[in-house]
Parts: sequence; C-alpha cells; structure tokens
Amino acid sequence: MTFKESICSMRRMEIKLRTPLDMHIHFRDGEMLKLVAPVTAHPFSAAVIMPNLLPPVNDLNSVQAYRQRITDAVGEESFKPLMTAFFRDFTEKELIALQREVIGIKLYPDGVTTNSMGGVSSLRDAEPILHLMEDLDIPLMVHGETDGFVLDRENEFLDIYEKWAKKFPKLRITMEHITTEEAVKLVSDYENLRATVTLHHLVLTLDDVIGGMLNPHYFCKPIIKRPEDREAIMEAVLEAHPKLMFGSDSAPHPRSAKESAQGAAGVFSAPVLLPCLVQFFEQHNALKYLQAFVSDNAKKLYRLKDVPEKEVTLVKEPGKVPEQMGEVVPMYAGKALKWSLA
Amino acid sequence: MTFKESICSMRRMEIKLRTPLDMHIHFRDGEMLKLVAPVTAHPFSAAVIMPNLLPPVNDLNSVQAYRQRITDAVGEESFKPLMTAFFRDFTEKELIALQREVIGIKLYPDGVTTNSMGGVSSLRDAEPILHLMEDLDIPLMVHGETDGFVLDRENEFLDIYEKWAKKFPKLRITMEHITTEEAVKLVSDYENLRATVTLHHLVLTLDDVIGGMLNPHYFCKPIIKRPEDREAIMEAVLEAHPKLMFGSDSAPHPRSAKESAQGAAGVFSAPVLLPCLVQFFEQHNALKYLQAFVSDNAKKLYRLKDVPEKEVTLVKEPGKVPEQMGEVVPMYAGKALKWSLA
Repeated sequence: MTFKESICSMRRMEIKLRTPLDMHIHFRDGEMLKLVAPVTAHPFSAAVIMPNLLPPVNDLNSVQAYRQRITDAVGEESFKPLMTAFFRDFTEKELIALQREVIGIKLYPDGVTTNSMGGVSSLRDAEPILHLMEDLDIPLMVHGETDGFVLDRENEFLDIYEKWAKKFPKLRITMEHITTEEAVKLVSDYENLRATVTLHHLVLTLDDVIGGMLNPHYFCKPIIKRPEDREAIMEAVLEAHPKLMFGSDSAPHPRSAKESAQGAAGVFSAPVLLPCLVQFFEQHNALKYLQAFVSDNAKKLYRLKDVPEKEVTLVKEPGKVPEQMGEVVPMYAGKALKWSLA
Repeated sequence: MTFKESICSMRRMEIKLRTPLDMHIHFRDGEMLKLVAPVTAHPFSAAVIMPNLLPPVNDLNSVQAYRQRITDAVGEESFKPLMTAFFRDFTEKELIALQREVIGIKLYPDGVTTNSMGGVSSLRDAEPILHLMEDLDIPLMVHGETDGFVLDRENEFLDIYEKWAKKFPKLRITMEHITTEEAVKLVSDYENLRATVTLHHLVLTLDDVIGGMLNPHYFCKPIIKRPEDREAIMEAVLEAHPKLMFGSDSAPHPRSAKESAQGAAGVFSAPVLLPCLVQFFEQHNALKYLQAFVSDNAKKLYRLKDVPEKEVTLVKEPGKVPEQMGEVVPMYAGKALKWSLA
C-alpha cells in the first residue's frame, strides 16, 4: 500500500489500495444482483460470491450461469467474481469439474442463515466429501455455527473446526465471518485454518443491535457479539494477523424484509466498506496493515493469481452514506464518513 | 386457588384465581390508554401503573389526573390502578402528600428505557430521597440497569441494590422485572428486597428475539437473556419463592414503532397473561403455586388491603391470540393458547 499524506496545495490526505478483495459477499440474484454487484465491482478487484440462492448454486451449470448473470450485472467494471458452490453430496467427478470454476465450496449447517435450508444436517456425513476436497486441494468455506443458543453457536462449532483441521490436515478451511474471542484464538492453532472478518464485526457490538432502540439493519448471523469479542478480533486484525482476510458478508435485503415482524438477517455494508476500513485502521494507527488485510493475506492464502489489477484511491474527504439504495438500507445510512472513494 | 378438574359432561378443566394482580404495567396515555387499560382491568383486580409518560407522572396533581384518566378508560370494570410516581428530587412534604396516592415511587436511571429521559443520572444524589422514603415507609421500585453492555446492565446494577438494601434496611425495594440468575439470588439475600417477574422473561430467551428471524415484538428492556437465566427465574417462581411477584411489564407500542429502523422496546403481553401463566404453571406441574405468584405474594409484600375482590376463571379451551389489537401487536399474535378466560 502506498500511504501518502500529501501536504500540497489541497492538504489532501489520500491512500491507495492495490487489488482490494472482498472474500465473502452475497450478491443475490435478479434485480437485487443488478443493484448490488456494481457497488462491489467498482472498488474491488474480485469478491468471493456466496452460493446461497434459492435453489442453491451447487453444480457446474448453476455456477456458470450465476457467473454469467454476475458478469452481466457488473458491466464494464474490471472485476472477477470468485465463485463458490453450495456444499452437498458431490461425486469426485463433479468436484473435478467444479474445481476449475470455483475458489472453494461453502458449507452451511442446515438452517443457520438466509437460504441455508438444505445445508448439511449431519456433519459426520460431510466427511467423505471433505476427504475428496482435501485430495483435490479444493478449499472449504464454512458458516461455523451450531443450532445452539444464539450467542454460543460459533464457539460451540469450534470443536468441529478443530476436528476437521486435524482430520484433514491438507484441507484449507476458511472459518467465515468469525465473531468471537475464542474463534480468533483457534485460527492460529492449526496451519490449515484461516478466517474472514467482516467490517461490522470489527466496528459494532451487540449494543448497536439491541442496546438502544432495536436496529434491524445491524441484525445478522452470526449475531454481533460482546465488546470483548470485538476487542479480540480488532487486536488480531490491527496486528496484521496473516491468516485473517477481509470478507464483508455484505448481505442485502429489501427494507421491508428488515423492518418487519420477522426481520431478515444481514448487513448491507458493500457501499461503505473501503472508506470505513480506512477510517478504522487510521483511527487505530494501523494504516500500514490495511493492504494485507484487504488483499495480500487472501492472495497468499488462496494462492490467487489472475485477479484484475486495480489501484483504488481513497481521499480524506467527507462522504455521506445514502439513506437507501434501491429498496435496501445500507450500513451507516445517512451518516457522514471521513473518507471517500476518489 | 381452587383447582378443579371437573370430569362432568364437558370434561372441562378449570382454574380459579383470586384477586389477580399485575404488579408492573405500562398503560400509556390518550388513545393507547383507552385501548390497553380495559384489557388489564377485565381479568385483574389491580395493577401497578408505571409513571413514565411524557412528561413523567411525578407530583400529586399528575398522579391524580392520570388516575382519573385510567378510571375513565377502564369504565365499569372493578379494577384499582395502583399509582406510582416517577422518582425525582422530592421534598418531605411532597412525599407525605404523595404517600396517600401511590403504592410506591419508581426510579429509572437516566435513559435506560422508553421515556426514562430525565431519570436519575447520579444514583448517589438519590440517597437523601431514599432516606426520606425509608422514614415514611414508601416503597421504592427500581428499573435496575446501568448504562453498560446490554447483557450486563442488570448484573452490574446488583451492587446498587445491595448497597441500598444495606444502607436503608427498612426501605422496601422492588427489583422490577428481574431477568438474570444473579438477580434471583440477590433477592433472597436481603429482607427488604423483593422482585417482579414478567411472563416473557419466564417463557422466552434471547433466542426468541434474535436467534432465528429478528422478532421486534419480543424486543424489550431489560433484554431477554440466556437460557440459564430463564431457568433460574423459572425455578424460583415454580418453587413459590415468596419474594417474587408477577408484574407483566406489558408495554404497548404501535406496530409501526416496533417494525422500524429504530424499534421501540416493550412486549405487549397484557392480552395473554393469565392464560399463558396457567399454561406455564400447568406444564411444570406447579399450578398450586400460581395463586401466590399472581396475587398472594404481592398482597403480603405491599400489605395491600383494599383491592377489589375478583375471582377469575380460566378454562382449558383453546383460544387464539388476535394478530393485532388496534395498532398494537400482542405477544403470541396469531398463536393458539391452551387456556382461555371464561
């Protein structure tokens, strides 16, 4: 990263990020895809696209077709969708065919989040496929939560991560969107574990969801946790932990689905990601580590080669987050940010 | 309580409760008061009316005027509103005048819940008034939460309860709507502490609020806590703990204020209280203790004498909770209950 505080005529502070990557995002489909894909494709070089559509993206055809719809939605932007497939009972032949098309396979325990119905109900039954994936060197991405009490689900799943990390030592396992102190500790304990971290779990706590008035726009799964959990994640990210990658888990829902008697889970953070990350790293005097978090770590861990080169400039000029984009309310709607995309 | 399982022609099981009391309720004002007051006045003999209107009910005139509006809203029902005044810097003369009109004085730390702005910002400054209240034998009711992390607020406040229980040994202090294992323990430790328990904290956990889809209608303050907390409260209530009284904390808001980007805190449980309590105590083979929880304990602890006698019959016949009452969505909206008011 080139960090340049230019004290020329404009006294404008700016930051350049090379090849920013969002290693976990929900693009949805249809009109929503058309709305949200360009928001990410503009500042990011590539993003890992989650496969939890209805029906799920879980075979060669559906992966290829979804990629095409994304490419169409993105338009002229130089952007690579890094596709994933929804974990199921794959044959070896299917996995070999998929391998050329996807960056990894995403495993959801049954029913843990939006459109995860049909996910894995018996984790033991998943093991033969994990064995095949290990042999083929296909990365595994996991929404690691049990069906326990909402605040304990992620920590209860850590035993599974640990078991798999030991049992499949060459399987690269990404603990997606980690949210707890204990998860941060575990990622360091096994060579084949790595994790994504969202913006909202870095900057918010459960107080922001239910501590004052109820904020359905910060309601997500895994639920945002305690201040101590946030501290632990922050500390690791700000110390440039080499196994932590930025993955926003930006997950748009129409406003009517959020402000509802049955509110949908997901924070639409895509419009504010890079300005907020710069602001956060600046605030903690850690700007020099942002490039690693937002790109370099992921490149190494996934051995990414052919993502479009992109240099993104952020300037320290106030920006205001829109109240709404289409039918979706973004994170920090209506708030002022200190940094803007140039 | 007369518990009679009549196996006559109808095989109808019925339960009679004498003089049911709701020791903590929000009646609001205006049109909302007209909607909700009759819902409580029909099955209950009396209820403790919270004073957190805007402006707060905190002097002789406002207490008398609010009581009159409640009496008007209740109409023909035999029902006694047990008035409270919002804690402030009272003189002794004011307290003496209020004493004939109120069952106690309600203390809110500043800003902890709906319309609690203007509550006590320095708890130390409250102590001279507590001393006067102790001398005059006016009960104190407390929303016991600090401004800490949402899940810790009640437990952090327990030190204050303990300090006051020791410092004002003759002041009768009600820990309102307790929600944690630790609060249940504390109430037994001091002769002058007692507590109210809501229906929703007896039957729900945080999972019901944020564990699946977001349910804004179960969002309240104090927030509903962990399963272990619920277990501890349940256990004490079902063992007929003599210092626990039923207080619903039923707190109506229009649907639009709940299903919102800034959702209001409060569960409107008034329409389902007695049927749900019977169902809950029946489920746990503790029906014989319900009369104490829903009336006798409070009568003793507050030395209540002149509340209207009322015998309320509940029958084991399915009832369906309305989806909405006026603009308010009740607890268990649209759900079937096993018991009904006769």
